[in-house]
Amino acid sequence: MKEDHAEGARIYAELRGVARAAEMLDLAQGIGAEAVIADLSLEFIFGKVWGRAGLDRKQRSLVTIAVLIALRQTAELQNHFRVGLANGLTHAEIEEAIVQTAPYAGFPAAWTAARALASVSSDREDAPG
Amino acid sequence: MKEDHAEGARIYAELRGVARAAEMLDLAQGIGAEAVIADLSLEFIFGKVWGRAGLDRKQRSLVTIAVLIALRQTAELQNHFRVGLANGLTHAEIEEAIVQTAPYAGFPAAWTAARALASVSSDREDAPG
Amino acid sequence: MKEDHAEGARIYAELRGVARAAEMLDLAQGIGAEAVIADLSLEFIFGKVWGRAGLDRKQRSLVTIAVLIALRQTAELQNHFRVGLANGLTHAEIEEAIVQTAPYAGFPAAWTAARALASVSSDREDAPG
Amino acid sequence: MKEDHAEGARIYAELRGVARAAEMLDLAQGIGAEAVIADLSLEFIFGKVWGRAGLDRKQRSLVTIAVLIALRQTAELQNHFRVGLANGLTHAEIEEAIVQTAPYAGFPAAWTAARALASVSSDREDAPG
Amino acid sequence: MKEDHAEGARIYAELRGVARAAEMLDLAQGIGAEAVIADLSLEFIFGKVWGRAGLDRKQRSLVTIAVLIALRQTAELQNHFRVGLANGLTHAEIEEAIVQTAPYAGFPAAWTAARALASVSSDREDAPG
Amino acid sequence: MKEDHAEGARIYAELRGVARAAEMLDLAQGIGAEAVIADLSLEFIFGKVWGRAGLDRKQRSLVTIAVLIALRQTAELQNHFRVGLANGLTHAEIEEAIVQTAPYAGFPAAWTAARALASVSSDREDAPG
Repeated sequence: MKEDHAEGARIYAELRGVARAAEMLDLAQGIGAEAVIADLSLEFIFGKVWGRAGLDRKQRSLVTIAVLIALRQTAELQNHFRVGLANGLTHAEIEEAIVQTAPYAGFPAAWTAARALASVSSDREDAPG
Repeated sequence: MKEDHAEGARIYAELRGVARAAEMLDLAQGIGAEAVIADLSLEFIFGKVWGRAGLDRKQRSLVTIAVLIALRQTAELQNHFRVGLANGLTHAEIEEAIVQTAPYAGFPAAWTAARALASVSSDREDAPG
Repeated sequence: MKEDHAEGARIYAELRGVARAAEMLDLAQGIGAEAVIADLSLEFIFGKVWGRAGLDRKQRSLVTIAVLIALRQTAELQNHFRVGLANGLTHAEIEEAIVQTAPYAGFPAAWTAARALASVSSDREDAPG
Repeated sequence: MKEDHAEGARIYAELRGVARAAEMLDLAQGIGAEAVIADLSLEFIFGKVWGRAGLDRKQRSLVTIAVLIALRQTAELQNHFRVGLANGLTHAEIEEAIVQTAPYAGFPAAWTAARALASVSSDREDAPG
Repeated sequence: MKEDHAEGARIYAELRGVARAAEMLDLAQGIGAEAVIADLSLEFIFGKVWGRAGLDRKQRSLVTIAVLIALRQTAELQNHFRVGLANGLTHAEIEEAIVQTAPYAGFPAAWTAARALASVSSDREDAPG
Repeated sequence: MKEDHAEGARIYAELRGVARAAEMLDLAQGIGAEAVIADLSLEFIFGKVWGRAGLDRKQRSLVTIAVLIALRQTAELQNHFRVGLANGLTHAEIEEAIVQTAPYAGFPAAWTAARALASVSSDREDAPG
């Protein structure tokens, strides 16, 4: 493991589980765009942003989920529903967060998110993000 | 005051202060697009969404701020920085929420939000939203 | 049926047919994010916005379709192609609306919409919206 | 005048007035990005899209205004409020179009549009578009 | 072939191959929204924009790919990965272009693009664009 | 200077000039959201992304400019017009890049960019980005 990945991989394992963190580390040591993005994600997003003080993990998940709803990034949103649950958000809190986005991002974005949540299982078996 | 506005106006006063809530009620009783949008905002957004259980006001502000950063709605974002402060978010927590959006919405959106926060004063004297 | 849903359900039945309106009413009385969004949609979008005077239904469909093309909300767009047809827009008028969006929303958004229209059947059997 | 500009300039004059059409033709014969975009706009958008049969000008304005609200292109939106008025939309119809976008594009986009409409004067003296 | 299509069809054949250019010409001579968009694309996008001097084809592909990543138009993006390869961009250069978008468009858009690139085969057998 | 900033500050000075790089370093050592974003920008965007091999600086500027046009981030776009010039793009090449975005991001986004370019002076005296 590259030294720059240690903190990010530790946090990623808390957010997505140890099996997926191992996959992400493997991916980050490969070549190509996915590898570079995995590398930068571990070092920067997970190591430097998610690990900051000032907001707790539930709050960071609410912010991230809201951004992904607004940008209509449905596949990543499903990953972050799982992260939110791992961070202690309840299913009902995520549902309320979706409702809160409706008047601001528009109802179609909120409908899409509500259906995406319904299709999320709890097994954490999906693409990295 | 229309009966449908009572709950929304009560909540709006908590979020933006009584003086602005009175202006919003006046606006909502006028004619034209701004009046209709104020009317629907009071009845629906403030009366039916912000008043829901399941997330507290700080959490609803985090979600709303994140959506507005992602959609690059800077003027409304400044209003919702003020709402967030009224809801108990600290200035530092709003700053961390902005940082959290950077990898997901892109750094330019986060820069724009950080500068918009710097220009928000505490006087609550701006356009309704 | 909740009293707040009566007007919205009446209009929804005109836009999507009575069978789907009944499903929407059922959904709106359930729990979870989809139920809340269905509830707010019936009361607010269908009861308070679509029922307004000032633009006819064909005009409201043109506006709605154009917004959904611009926001690349393809699943909802397919629903609103059906609403547009129920509101009296011809297939050819919807095609011209798509062409009109191309220079403003970009050709990729218009291509996506044209293909989505081609896949819409006339049976009104899809997700609510 | 380039031959390719004749039809577009004729239609542009109907939408924005003869003085602005003359300016647009001048701009289109210059050099640089604005000139190229003016050139392509006259030949393509105004000559080939706005001149098509199948939707009338009021309908094309409704579609265009809705796209610009959804994309938050406020300066161009103000131009197209003027085009809409020239095409026979009433101020009240434009206001209803803005209201119709609120649940789909989100209330902040509709607020922004309503304020932009309020600032549009009837003099047709602004940037081309 | 319409005379207006000759230059666009010639360039399209260079970008996508002669078989697909023939299909695009056929499509452009049909009726309906897809036909009109194909017609305008051949005459305008391929005939008037891609054929311009001032940037080479590789540069035009980099710009187009970056726009499509930012707008999350994944299907069109896959077409333009193929165009980029035909224009002389290497797979590795496209991967670096995707990495470059991450901090500006956000990591989820870059992830989506990286996965879309992985699924692009070299056979040029897909929808027009 | 923090060690993590050295490479990013070196590259930033090449892109924006030494005076602005010194300001950026100062900003990155302060507190608040702007400071954190400056810190992450120096370490991550300038140190880890702009410094990568595989695309030259002109190509990276074309990609970045195209993303910012598509996302309608006009203030940041003006900064990156300056970066592009520093990276060796000519004014005419930037103009062609703007033209290339028009059919994909829509003409309003391209008009906005063309006007923003016209207002950029060569003095490199603006906000960091």
